[in-house]
Amino acid sequence: MLFKNIAVLDDRFKLRENGYVGVKDGVIGYIGDQMPEEAFGEEYDGRGKLLMSGFVNAHAHTPMTLLRGYGENLNLSDWLNTRIFPFEEKLTGHDIYYAMLLGIAESLRSGIVSTTDMYFYGEEMARAVLESGVKNNLSLGLTCFGDEDLYTLKNYKEGKLLFENCHNTGDGRLKIDMCIHAEYTSGEKVVRQMAEHCKSLGANMHIHLSETKEEHEGCKLRHGGKTPAEYFYSLGIFDSKTTAAHCVWLEGEDFDILKEKGVTVASCPKSNLKLASGVCNAPKLLEKGINVALGTDGAASNNSLNMLEEMKFFALIHKEKWGDPRVVTPRQALYAATRAGAVSQGRADTAALKTGMKADLIALDISGAHMKPAHSLLNNLIYSASGSDVRLTMVDGKVLYRDGEYQTIDIEKVIFEVEKSKDRILSELGQALAEKA
Amino acid sequence: MLFKNIAVLDDRFKLRENGYVGVKDGVIGYIGDQMPEEAFGEEYDGRGKLLMSGFVNAHAHTPMTLLRGYGENLNLSDWLNTRIFPFEEKLTGHDIYYAMLLGIAESLRSGIVSTTDMYFYGEEMARAVLESGVKNNLSLGLTCFGDEDLYTLKNYKEGKLLFENCHNTGDGRLKIDMCIHAEYTSGEKVVRQMAEHCKSLGANMHIHLSETKEEHEGCKLRHGGKTPAEYFYSLGIFDSKTTAAHCVWLEGEDFDILKEKGVTVASCPKSNLKLASGVCNAPKLLEKGINVALGTDGAASNNSLNMLEEMKFFALIHKEKWGDPRVVTPRQALYAATRAGAVSQGRADTAALKTGMKADLIALDISGAHMKPAHSLLNNLIYSASGSDVRLTMVDGKVLYRDGEYQTIDIEKVIFEVEKSKDRILSELGQALAEKA
Repeated sequence: MLFKNIAVLDDRFKLRENGYVGVKDGVIGYIGDQMPEEAFGEEYDGRGKLLMSGFVNAHAHTPMTLLRGYGENLNLSDWLNTRIFPFEEKLTGHDIYYAMLLGIAESLRSGIVSTTDMYFYGEEMARAVLESGVKNNLSLGLTCFGDEDLYTLKNYKEGKLLFENCHNTGDGRLKIDMCIHAEYTSGEKVVRQMAEHCKSLGANMHIHLSETKEEHEGCKLRHGGKTPAEYFYSLGIFDSKTTAAHCVWLEGEDFDILKEKGVTVASCPKSNLKLASGVCNAPKLLEKGINVALGTDGAASNNSLNMLEEMKFFALIHKEKWGDPRVVTPRQALYAATRAGAVSQGRADTAALKTGMKADLIALDISGAHMKPAHSLLNNLIYSASGSDVRLTMVDGKVLYRDGEYQTIDIEKVIFEVEKSKDRILSELGQALAEKA
Repeated sequence: MLFKNIAVLDDRFKLRENGYVGVKDGVIGYIGDQMPEEAFGEEYDGRGKLLMSGFVNAHAHTPMTLLRGYGENLNLSDWLNTRIFPFEEKLTGHDIYYAMLLGIAESLRSGIVSTTDMYFYGEEMARAVLESGVKNNLSLGLTCFGDEDLYTLKNYKEGKLLFENCHNTGDGRLKIDMCIHAEYTSGEKVVRQMAEHCKSLGANMHIHLSETKEEHEGCKLRHGGKTPAEYFYSLGIFDSKTTAAHCVWLEGEDFDILKEKGVTVASCPKSNLKLASGVCNAPKLLEKGINVALGTDGAASNNSLNMLEEMKFFALIHKEKWGDPRVVTPRQALYAATRAGAVSQGRADTAALKTGMKADLIALDISGAHMKPAHSLLNNLIYSASGSDVRLTMVDGKVLYRDGEYQTIDIEKVIFEVEKSKDRILSELGQALAEKA
């Protein structure tokens, strides 16, 4: 495809007006101010549009779309125990497959090309990723509540099989990461064994870290004063390339540990607000040069998979929290939503608009009233644009979404199946409640 | 117009699936589950859509669209003194007229039917309101910096004339309010005189109140310990029906004063985050039964005029700020964005979907992937919907916006003129800077 007469935001976030970008064999082959001599196939009229890197969602539980808007305005323990956990117990592989596709559709619609996911029914999630054409770093949320041996856990075996069968499939679009769900949901032995296992595979690690004050302080009580970061560090988790979600309650040496081990912080500002978890100290992380990426978390605590919205929250909440309107610039927010996520996923070849990189691109409509005038396109992109301004999403050079249409997803069927799953589960839960009573 | 087969959110936020709503002579004439016998003209196929009250933006400076994205990531005094004030000095009536139309277009696009505005060049703003068909409570930001007499001020005379010529014109769509910009930008004498003047006209009052800590604490120093609320109370400002924007730093008796005098708080969560002003204690205001409406503030500190986004911020930031995910429910957010604003504007006949009320309505697309499944439409509306889901905006029964098209605004011309104004002002400012150097 050849994008013509389009504004182009390059890998250094420099704007080129009226540019030309050619895509061939899944890769960006040409960027210039003139029509290239080489042929690139279909021509895309880019007037009134901006071409830029697609977004990387660095922390999600994509199939939780099925729980969107279910159980709101509850405190965390009521939310988990009376809503989320009972609902999740009823989920089947069929439910997960369609809920995953729904989340992928929503993600594509707002320009997400790649996601770091943690959930269960990995095989069905993998199938949805491969069929839909997106990129995903997929892990199974590993939990255990006693002194179990990792190698006896069903979840470990599933994860191992998934890694063997699916890692780097779909031309590398799908990667399988290892996972410890969190400190408070696993035993020390399992964590230590998982650290070893992950290292031996050369895989990435995905964890929740210091999301809530309760978790953070509880960890210190449980582990002789060690914070979650210190705890995982001591057990070797960070010896693998790690994405740590949330990191709201980091303190003291935690920052140095993350910096030393090259851990990526996947900040989830909307989810942290909604569940009243707190605000991650992104300004300090950024100042220390720690890789800060952005995640949506699951749709049950967001309730969207929309990185333009996430960037807006990310850029705004820190200004108030730290009392300084200068912190978290549009440039920092955009980097967090694109390149930082790709770095965390171990994808050096994407999330930067540059020749030779994978063509994981989006075209945004910048002609709307809410985007005018254009004193600064970067400011407008962070503070004024919305996810629905995305008109085209391309992964590895293939158009997956364009003007409301999905090329690889039968969205009507997906919505039909998801509503059916929802109704079935609610009816089962109704029965379960009735049986209990 | 007859809306058919449409989900309907009524004045009590109760959902009716597959409803019928008939509009005649600018008023809602029919709500039911069946086709009415009476004819209502054009039929609107509402499948996959939600019909609800349009939004009321309770505090804005609409023409500031012209400054959108100009001067970002600066502290408040640098922002005002090096960017906003110098730019505003260069504005002409022509600039204001088109910038106002741009803001009205943006507002309509995300479902705003009525706005409470404070700015200058009232005649041009009024013209844009009347021509475009929207509703507006318009006031001129009154400032003075000494012991002036109100009746000698140019701004007073303009406001008086505007009231005489424009108040309740356009079938009552346009109302002229009185205004004191803020405590720190006016003298005591002028405030007292304005309180009298406003009362004598029977007009509404529009002020900024305790937006920043500096303003709030400064007021106490300047006025013998009186908070801005106590100060305005003592000078009689609240004897008129008042909308007080921001109210971030209220303390002590301030809450009781607002309650006693029936003052509406126009909370502007996004602007307050962006300028690092703080977070208004909406939970406490709501608990006290104070009328809390929602405003966007100007596009220079938001940077959108989008009430769906504002509701989302409003519902989320308080959960974190007060450490309780139960505060500010979707119902409270929706009320703040609709009915509370209408109450503050003195418009008893709008912002509620009920027979006999003015047909100030919007139709939202609720069929998108990001709105599925629908465990609760109200939850999805607040936490998942986006402004661009609005497909139709109607004021007094007239369709002003539909599927990207404006019926009363030549949006291409407006954008052209606004970009021209921007370029002219920037060039003048460049010259001004050059002359200074």
